[in-house]
Amino acid sequence: MTPPVPDPAALDLLARGADEILKREELAARLAASARPGGRPLRVKAGFDPTAPDLHLGHTVLLNKMRQFQDLGHQVIFLIGDFTGMIGDPTGKNVTRKPLSREDVLDNARTYEAQVFKVLDREKTEVRFNSEWFGRMSAADMIRLAGQHTVARMLERDDFAKRHAAQQSIAIHEFLYPLVQGYDSVALQADVELGGTDQKFNLLMGRGLQEHHGQAPQVVLTMPLLVGLDGVNKMGKSLGNYIGINEPAIDIVNKTMKIGDALMWDWIDLLSFEIGIDEARRLRADVAAGLNPRDVKLRLARELAARFHDAAAAETAIAGWHAAVTGQGDTSLLERRDVAIPADGIRIGALLTAAGITPSNSEASRKLKERAVKVDGAVVEDPDTRFAPGFEGVLQVGKRNFARVRLVSG
Amino acid sequence: MTPPVPDPAALDLLARGADEILKREELAARLAASARPGGRPLRVKAGFDPTAPDLHLGHTVLLNKMRQFQDLGHQVIFLIGDFTGMIGDPTGKNVTRKPLSREDVLDNARTYEAQVFKVLDREKTEVRFNSEWFGRMSAADMIRLAGQHTVARMLERDDFAKRHAAQQSIAIHEFLYPLVQGYDSVALQADVELGGTDQKFNLLMGRGLQEHHGQAPQVVLTMPLLVGLDGVNKMGKSLGNYIGINEPAIDIVNKTMKIGDALMWDWIDLLSFEIGIDEARRLRADVAAGLNPRDVKLRLARELAARFHDAAAAETAIAGWHAAVTGQGDTSLLERRDVAIPADGIRIGALLTAAGITPSNSEASRKLKERAVKVDGAVVEDPDTRFAPGFEGVLQVGKRNFARVRLVSG
Repeated sequence: MTPPVPDPAALDLLARGADEILKREELAARLAASARPGGRPLRVKAGFDPTAPDLHLGHTVLLNKMRQFQDLGHQVIFLIGDFTGMIGDPTGKNVTRKPLSREDVLDNARTYEAQVFKVLDREKTEVRFNSEWFGRMSAADMIRLAGQHTVARMLERDDFAKRHAAQQSIAIHEFLYPLVQGYDSVALQADVELGGTDQKFNLLMGRGLQEHHGQAPQVVLTMPLLVGLDGVNKMGKSLGNYIGINEPAIDIVNKTMKIGDALMWDWIDLLSFEIGIDEARRLRADVAAGLNPRDVKLRLARELAARFHDAAAAETAIAGWHAAVTGQGDTSLLERRDVAIPADGIRIGALLTAAGITPSNSEASRKLKERAVKVDGAVVEDPDTRFAPGFEGVLQVGKRNFARVRLVSG
Repeated sequence: MTPPVPDPAALDLLARGADEILKREELAARLAASARPGGRPLRVKAGFDPTAPDLHLGHTVLLNKMRQFQDLGHQVIFLIGDFTGMIGDPTGKNVTRKPLSREDVLDNARTYEAQVFKVLDREKTEVRFNSEWFGRMSAADMIRLAGQHTVARMLERDDFAKRHAAQQSIAIHEFLYPLVQGYDSVALQADVELGGTDQKFNLLMGRGLQEHHGQAPQVVLTMPLLVGLDGVNKMGKSLGNYIGINEPAIDIVNKTMKIGDALMWDWIDLLSFEIGIDEARRLRADVAAGLNPRDVKLRLARELAARFHDAAAAETAIAGWHAAVTGQGDTSLLERRDVAIPADGIRIGALLTAAGITPSNSEASRKLKERAVKVDGAVVEDPDTRFAPGFEGVLQVGKRNFARVRLVSG
């Protein structure tokens, strides 16, 4: 492992976009100690659900911060909280939260790995499972752990406080899970723990337990939740306001290009490595002085597409985007997707919806009437226009909604 | 094992002295089912602290109720809660509650056995330790157990509610202990659990957990706490208002004879097997009609002395008590105790205190001035009267405080 880089700007970089650092002076001291001769890389922990998600950009906010620590020479621990996942919901109330088997956990870990190493440096990442230490723990150990915190303190946690006040039931094991998460920091001897702002209480739990076990309490660094494409709500699957990291490069570019200008600056702070703190400040000034924010957004879109694909794919996607949006250039650069249609063909409206360009057939009808629909650059307005399997071309609604498709029978 | 006796009066007997039965109709149904052909003895559980006490009469209230179940043919489980005792106090706040070792637990169990079989029928008693099942439990099992109850429900327990309201800290493991006790009933498949009124919440926990595990919920029977010699406070070591079951027969008799008449009736309900429900009712009527309550108390005293010693020792103690209190009869019947004094002798006041007859030397002086002190039946009033090792005789203050002593050098 390369020794940590003694970088005077390290603290500013790590603080970028962060919601809170508890405590900033402790982080400064740890970074300094690590950079001194004989110093060791910091152990930077972040915990992840053992259920395997398709990661979206929202998840990468934390991964990016982990990556920044790695780039400064530190050791990141990608902790999969499989122990509690394998218990499931013991109240039996939540039937959708079934216990995971050991195999589920390993499968999910592989799904994670396939995604997170698009951001993280594999060499400086320890993937761990907390069943490693909790699987060995006895009921007596768990009772001892439970003796290290108080009921009153646990009820201070925001969501517990609200549920308790609203007389919604809290099962007692829910009081144990923050302790489990906290104890993970003890087991891992974490120097720093990263998490979303919603995790702050649990991250602080680690500090308390580490002190109880004679360790220096970890630094807690919380990151805000990424706002999604709608510019209002946190990015998430349920709202459909997300960019999945496995999406085609053109979709990453196209969706990024549609976000609002204000949101763009937040995304730059939370998602960009290439646009540094100083450059972001300069770009803001340039935009205030007349630079088209679209040019800034293009840089961000290119960086994101390249991160989750590669530089060439990103260039192609950008060029394709230009071709489609400006109506000039080579739309064959656009990534092509297969759309399954009935063997005897499909009408234009249904096709637009099947291709994900319009949200519904009625919306497609409206757009046809508005003469906003183009196929390969030519306006189509007859709703009875049909397409058969084998057709290949660019479908477009308005300027910014488009896709290059090939129709297959299915 | 003898089959349970189908006794129509069984329910009344079991309910005698009980504070609450939850639910009485369930107990009736279980007793009836047990008494039917093919019925099985009920499994009657009572839990005991793993710290070895010198038992006093207060503890025997529960043992007596257990014995009544045994006499009706049922199986009693004397459960030693060693699992939590071996954990100690994980908060580290209670330094006096050190974890017990396995050896401590076994030593303490032997101490218990030496005492409780003065009341219980050894043949119908299963001595169990809850480490048997909890020692095998994993941390995950404990979390699952904790999922079976809610924080709100736990905070309803009287002492938790008070401490929470008073902002006194409750460590989270304290919420697990009632669950542990409740789960013991699941592990033992208890039909009935007995406990003091202060245990009601924990006993009900067993009902809930048994239902959760597909068992019929146990009947909960609570016994009141025995009021001590002072007639006011519950019997306990700290107040000195107790009769230890290992005390000499004469002390059991003498202390019992000093309790108030009102308390006597409570003691009869909670401590006597010989004076049944109907007879107790008759005796009350007789006392109202002029019978000297002392005669009733003598029966109780004799029964208690016989229980913890034997019939002959009880007779001797009663005779000795008569001799000392009436000043007639053979005081050599009194059990003799050795009192260690300095080799060069001791003054009468200090001797009375050393023998436990007066609480202090100043009280002894007062009694000497009142001419209330006798040695071998003769009044002693000179405070300078000295006694040397080898002396043997009866010391007495007033009518009812006396002891037959032998002075030894020590």
